[in-house]
Amino acid sequence: MDAVASSSVFNSLSSESRLAPESGIVEVVNSARERADLIPLWVGEGDLPTPDFVCDAAIASMRAGETFYTYQRGIPELRTAIAEYHSDLYGGSFDLERFYVTGSGMQAIQIAVTCVISPGDHVLVPTPAWPNLAAAVEIRGGRAIPVPMDFTSAGWSLDIDRLVDAATPQTRAIFLNSPCNPSGWVASRDNIEAILAFARKEGLWIIADEIYARFYFGGGRRAPSFFDVIEPDDRVIFVNSFSKNWAMTGWRVGWLSAPPEMGQVIENLIQYSTSGVPVYSQRAAAAALNEGTGFLDQQLSRAENGRALVLEQFARSERFRFAAPEGAFYAFFGIDGISDTRQLALDLVRETGVGLAPGSAFGDAGQGFLRLCFARREDHVREGLDRIVRWIDGR
Amino acid sequence: MDAVASSSVFNSLSSESRLAPESGIVEVVNSARERADLIPLWVGEGDLPTPDFVCDAAIASMRAGETFYTYQRGIPELRTAIAEYHSDLYGGSFDLERFYVTGSGMQAIQIAVTCVISPGDHVLVPTPAWPNLAAAVEIRGGRAIPVPMDFTSAGWSLDIDRLVDAATPQTRAIFLNSPCNPSGWVASRDNIEAILAFARKEGLWIIADEIYARFYFGGGRRAPSFFDVIEPDDRVIFVNSFSKNWAMTGWRVGWLSAPPEMGQVIENLIQYSTSGVPVYSQRAAAAALNEGTGFLDQQLSRAENGRALVLEQFARSERFRFAAPEGAFYAFFGIDGISDTRQLALDLVRETGVGLAPGSAFGDAGQGFLRLCFARREDHVREGLDRIVRWIDGR
Repeated sequence: MDAVASSSVFNSLSSESRLAPESGIVEVVNSARERADLIPLWVGEGDLPTPDFVCDAAIASMRAGETFYTYQRGIPELRTAIAEYHSDLYGGSFDLERFYVTGSGMQAIQIAVTCVISPGDHVLVPTPAWPNLAAAVEIRGGRAIPVPMDFTSAGWSLDIDRLVDAATPQTRAIFLNSPCNPSGWVASRDNIEAILAFARKEGLWIIADEIYARFYFGGGRRAPSFFDVIEPDDRVIFVNSFSKNWAMTGWRVGWLSAPPEMGQVIENLIQYSTSGVPVYSQRAAAAALNEGTGFLDQQLSRAENGRALVLEQFARSERFRFAAPEGAFYAFFGIDGISDTRQLALDLVRETGVGLAPGSAFGDAGQGFLRLCFARREDHVREGLDRIVRWIDGR
Repeated sequence: MDAVASSSVFNSLSSESRLAPESGIVEVVNSARERADLIPLWVGEGDLPTPDFVCDAAIASMRAGETFYTYQRGIPELRTAIAEYHSDLYGGSFDLERFYVTGSGMQAIQIAVTCVISPGDHVLVPTPAWPNLAAAVEIRGGRAIPVPMDFTSAGWSLDIDRLVDAATPQTRAIFLNSPCNPSGWVASRDNIEAILAFARKEGLWIIADEIYARFYFGGGRRAPSFFDVIEPDDRVIFVNSFSKNWAMTGWRVGWLSAPPEMGQVIENLIQYSTSGVPVYSQRAAAAALNEGTGFLDQQLSRAENGRALVLEQFARSERFRFAAPEGAFYAFFGIDGISDTRQLALDLVRETGVGLAPGSAFGDAGQGFLRLCFARREDHVREGLDRIVRWIDGR
């Protein structure tokens, strides 16, 4: 980096853009993306392509000439389908005016951050956490304040007092990702109520990332949600995505749920970032919601099977530090005697062809861990775990 | 707005998001989007859907299962095609490492602004100008400083001394859109050299929006460009889009050209905004570049015909204030005796069904003007202009 850092072009860039971190996951992926015997368990995506019925909806839309500018907030068909999905899953009635289509869950986060954070403001982030939220806050000129969670062999837990103590007069929001990527932690109803009470008392916003809501191993159709406890005018913005449920990672379609009176503000922020989502992509997303229940069930079974396989394989070595995930589709684990897991991830993929994400990519609290995505082909998960166990045994 | 402005949710949003302006174009569009006899000349898009050969490339990609995450900077096939397009159009050799695929020209602007502007910094913007650049700057916490251009019946002109005088110690960049939306002004080679010399002297960045480069009525294949005069390490970021040339407004695909040493910074900013562009959309964009010369020629002819029709019809009334555009595909005109063109645009679409964009949407310097897109069906442009002339005559 020295040659770059000393250059005049680089130094004339804004400090926020210069300091934005390289994704610790992408760094490892780029080191071995094209390797022939690769078992890629590093990224948060399954290995099934988008199902045909979803692609067909996009193709029909393209063929019908739906290739023009469209509504900034999303087409009414999709917003209606999103509202119905929520009514079905959370109970009660949802107005489509609460929902805004975005160009990925990531963009939903970017827009949520822009809505509630000015330069200099702070956001509390329980960690380990998906790094992109903190990066979006810092690029905006704000600060993401990590609140480390506790790990024991019984699982991860969030100390609410530690969260409360981390607040300062600059704090504007709490980011809560549950079920959590990478740790698999799921906020309990008690956690959610306590966080909401704290946010109400201090006038803070909550950015609720419940993207993995359906990947929940505690029984029932979904994890506990802020939708279970909020009033319509609570300061909660939900970010969500079609990527995980319907194997649409490559489509870059997500949505926001927010109080309807924010509608014009969110429309404006969409206008001034990507100016809307392709109509054909939105038709595909609507098909996913309207016809995708069976496919989603398959995705959930696949994750459950992958999780069972991980539990079985991890029992083969006493060197794994690991707790069974309550949600999402990742094993987040440590290996006794190895602390530098960034180097470990680079070594593992080079020497075994198994791609994992280093825990260091998820903040200091992730140091010493690796993330493995198990929502993939059973033979690959099995083979990947086997290669890892053998490699560890040989060291 | 009073009820909204007084609410607690609204007031708890960041000031930058609250103050982001509603698009003055979208406001008019939303007032009459579904009207049956509408002649929509308000938005910057043609009326041809994306050609089949472009859609076919996207469909083949979807069918091949290219529905996963991909390279943040864009797929090599598309970056290579963009580099070759530049070599052909501007001469000389272009390295694909200069180019980054973005989720629209708008996102290219957002990323360029984030690269060079910190909160509190200023950008100089000759006006009238497409409003989204200024909005992106203000959302970032910066300030867009308008530099009014001069209008005479001979056309618009930029006073370079006025641009120089507008710079302050906070100024970090100059945004230059040529050919200009909405005015049709095209920067001369002398203009470009003078602006580059000023930027070099003051250490400023130039964000060059040459999206309409091919829509140039001064002879030759393109308008004068910063590519004609820059050295590789000049602080110039180009923003571009597939929307206009290849009838792909709905696809949301654009690109950036920037010094290669910015690569990691731009990759990071893509990662933390939308995390890449769908592979199938990129295959479509590559098809547009590789097989789209004939279609682009049709688009250019269509614009030339539309422009000729505008010149012919505007000669019918002495009340039009108008200069023939040198580039882009808009007529930007005033009507003697009418100063409130926002109200005029709302009245016109309600009473005649002709949709125009109010000049007020393009900054103070656009007050008293209307923007009409003429890159559309000849009968519609003719009928639209006819309705406008008759309506004006009746007042």
